[in-house]
Formats: sequence, structure tokens, C-alpha cells
Amino acid sequence: MFYLVGLGLGDAKDITVKGLEIVRKARRVYLEAYTSILTIGKNELEKFYGREIILADREMVEQQSDEIFKDSETEDIAFLVVGDPFGATTHTDLVLRAKEKGIAYRVIHNASIMNAIGCCGLQLYNFGETVSIVFWTEDWRPDSFYDKIANNKKGGMHTLCLLDIKVKEQSIENLMRGRKIFEPPRYMTVNQAAEQLLEIIEKKKQEGDQELELTEDTVCVGVARVGSDTQQIVSGTLKQMTTVDFGGPLHSLVIAGHLHPLENDMLKLFAVDVNTLS
Amino acid sequence: MFYLVGLGLGDAKDITVKGLEIVRKARRVYLEAYTSILTIGKNELEKFYGREIILADREMVEQQSDEIFKDSETEDIAFLVVGDPFGATTHTDLVLRAKEKGIAYRVIHNASIMNAIGCCGLQLYNFGETVSIVFWTEDWRPDSFYDKIANNKKGGMHTLCLLDIKVKEQSIENLMRGRKIFEPPRYMTVNQAAEQLLEIIEKKKQEGDQELELTEDTVCVGVARVGSDTQQIVSGTLKQMTTVDFGGPLHSLVIAGHLHPLENDMLKLFAVDVNTLS
Repeated sequence: MFYLVGLGLGDAKDITVKGLEIVRKARRVYLEAYTSILTIGKNELEKFYGREIILADREMVEQQSDEIFKDSETEDIAFLVVGDPFGATTHTDLVLRAKEKGIAYRVIHNASIMNAIGCCGLQLYNFGETVSIVFWTEDWRPDSFYDKIANNKKGGMHTLCLLDIKVKEQSIENLMRGRKIFEPPRYMTVNQAAEQLLEIIEKKKQEGDQELELTEDTVCVGVARVGSDTQQIVSGTLKQMTTVDFGGPLHSLVIAGHLHPLENDMLKLFAVDVNTLS
Repeated sequence: MFYLVGLGLGDAKDITVKGLEIVRKARRVYLEAYTSILTIGKNELEKFYGREIILADREMVEQQSDEIFKDSETEDIAFLVVGDPFGATTHTDLVLRAKEKGIAYRVIHNASIMNAIGCCGLQLYNFGETVSIVFWTEDWRPDSFYDKIANNKKGGMHTLCLLDIKVKEQSIENLMRGRKIFEPPRYMTVNQAAEQLLEIIEKKKQEGDQELELTEDTVCVGVARVGSDTQQIVSGTLKQMTTVDFGGPLHSLVIAGHLHPLENDMLKLFAVDVNTLS
């Protein structure tokens, strides 16, 4: 059996009891290590599980899945994913390849940012489409996520913005020379995401767009390290989100839509300045 | 400390290791027992935890929260919730009341239907607003959920439909006479939800609406007992959803929006009849 096991969001003990039993009995244990990060390291996980873990990077998952699936017709193989296997980053391609080979799979679900974001006080069922905000470069500044946020907001819905992660990226020079030298990992902060949004708003204003859904006063919630001991939740305006210190990764940003009174009360618990929330 | 602990979706072993440690050490352990159901019983949970569990019904949670919070300034109290504490049914009111009393709280997240629904092969970030489909009665047939689904579909987004649960409901007669006699629990099936949707479509057609977002051929996914050993996932048309036998509760229904090729491939794994999916 091929097991996709969600690890949840915090530390080693956020795995479920069922997931832990599978990990402890599996023939091989892989950890997907390119779309998210654990707040703790591989060593700590290995110590807690009492098992050796094989790190699976993008190359291994996309090009060497036969290696990963090996023996899974007769033995249990565990593939660990931070959050839930079908969370912010899905592993449907791996499931499809397993099915093609006639390998049975099973999913052990866990919390992911897609549902744990409910901790910020906004009701999950009032969230619209989720967007990804990517790092801008000098000459690549996509802004289509703005339209999706605006569209959600128009319908009264909140938007979860997943912030960019760059892990094991090569510089263009190293890529062209075929050198497997990787840049240090980078994680977008709430501050950076808010700044990019403010820049888009400014640009749209200059282009004559006067009736913008988002302004610098739009209510937002920034979150960091959700589910961990050092979790941080701060609500305030989009402008305020550029200056709050959220500490280490991972960060996410929520743009609030229409606020129900109970949601508003919850946001007040986390306000930078309670006066900026009405 | 007041702990809100998510139990996940399947059986006793879907609690996280962290959650289990809290339950085993807590002074008192409550189980929220009115908005969802466990596929296993309270006894099995008690046996696995080695702890006595106090069932908390709606009345207790809404009117006797002081009782629940008692001693939580100095001792650990655990409040267990099927799924995640901020999942389909949120417990923000309880958090707000705790904060009012100056009681510190902590959330132990877990999978809920709001993220585990990713198992059906549709990408979570392409879901729009979540809707609830309620049991109709002779003279109460609300259909506002149709418009929300149609609006999501128009934007290419999928819709998760949470299906009605009636637990500890009193008949009007028993309610009026103040008799605490409760009706047997009822859970809406995928079949019933699909039938109600088809009836709304038929009514709209008769009223002259010709350009409906939903038809009997709209692609859907019905799911039952997600996360449990007997989990069932079936994709097909809305019409087909009226006849598939999904077995016992809980059921949910997804109405697909625009399908990405990878999503389509996943849906084919679960198709009633692969020819009805293009």
C-alpha cells in the first residue's frame, strides 16, 4: 500500500496516531521537501518516529516516482507531506501515477493552512477562491491575483493568499551551466505581500480606476507559523500589514470580505489597533 | 488552559499525538456532540483515551459554558470537536466567551471536511464559497444555495455543499409542550441533495429561466465518510447522483466548476460511468 500521510502544521507531534503507526511500520519513509517547510528539522522527525527519512525533492517526485513506488504492491511505503496531502499543494499527480501502475493508495488526512486558517476568526465557508502571491522580479510583475481577490471581495467573500516559497531554486547562471548549486530558500513575508498589493492598487489608480475593491484601509489578517507554538495572528488594514513584524516563515495573508459581527469580534482579539476595525 | 482539540474525520486514531497527550492529561474532557458525528461511538473513544468523556450538547455549550470553563485558569480542560475546531462548524463563540473571562485557549488543528474534500481530486484553491443544503419541509423550501453554487460555477469555481444534519431535534409538539423528547437523528444523503437541486432547476426552467448554470448533466462528486475506512467517492452527473448508493452518513456533495485536465483525470478514477465525463 502507498500511504500519503499528512503531518499537519506544527511539529513532530502533529501527526495523527494513525499516521504515526503507518510511519513506524512502513518499509520506506519519504518526506516531500520542496513545496513547504516544517518548523522543525528532518533529524527531529527521525528521532520522534524512530525511522530514517528519505528527503524527496521535486526532481525525485516528478522523475523518479518508480523508485518511490518500488515494492508498494507488497509492502507499505509512506510518503509524508507537511499539512494535508491534498492541501495547498496537491499530490494528485502522484496518485494518478500510482493508479496507472495498479498500486493501491490511502490518504491519512491532517490539518493544512486551507482549513487551519479558520483560527484567524473568519468563517471558512465564507472564503472564495484561494490565490497565490508570487515574488516579483524586475521584469516579471504579474498581478492577476488582485482581480481574483477583488472578485471574491465583491461577492462578500474572504481570500486566503498563499505566499511564495522558493526552495532549491537555481540562479539563471547556474541553471544554464547545469550546475546543481541552489540559492538559499526564500519565503514571502506578509509585509512583502501587502506591499505588492499596495503597488497594484497605486498603479490601478494612476490608470484611472477609481472604484477599486481594495484600498490601503481594507481589513486583512496576517498569520505566521499557524498551528505551531509560536503562531502569530494580527488583524489590521492592508497598510498596517506592511509594518507588523511576523517573524520567521511561513506567512499567509487573508483579505477580509464582508464581516459578520462574530467575525468582527474575533478580529478585534488580534487587532494591531482596535480603532482601525469598526 | 482551555484546549480545543480537533479529532479529524475517521476513528479514534485520527487524533494527533499532541491532541492525545492533552486529552490524557486534562482535568475534564468534553466532546461536542451536536454538529457532527463520529463514525465510532463515545465508548470506543473513552477506551482509546483511557478517559471519561462528558458529552456536550448545544444547550450545554451555549448556556452552560461557565461549567465547561470551570478551573481552566489553573487546570487543563479539553474540548473535543469532530474534524477541526474551526472547520465546517466553528466554535468562535466559545473562544470569544473564553477570552471575555480572561481564559487562555489553544487550538489543536486537524483535518476537516473543508480540506479533506481535496481527496475527490478537485483542487482546494479552486473552490468558491461553501454552501449548506438544508432539509426541505412541506412549506419551507429555501433555495438560495442554488444561487451561490451558480455564482461559483460562473467564475469557474467548485462548490462544496455541506448536507443537513438533524441531531437532538424536537418535534413541534414536544417543543411546545416543553418535553425533552428528541427525534431520531437524520442526515441528508447525496441522493436527497441532488434531488432538491434538480427540483430547483426544474422550477427555474418553468419560470422561463433558459440559461441555467446548472443542469442535470453538471459534473458532481458525491462523497461519504471521508477519512474513514469505508470512505466512498463517486463522480458523475447531478442526475446520476440521485441514484448512487453512498451508504451511511456523513455525506457531502461537490458541484464541479471549470475542470483542469489533472482534475478531470482524477474524477475519472471515481466515475459511475466514465463516458459521462468528457
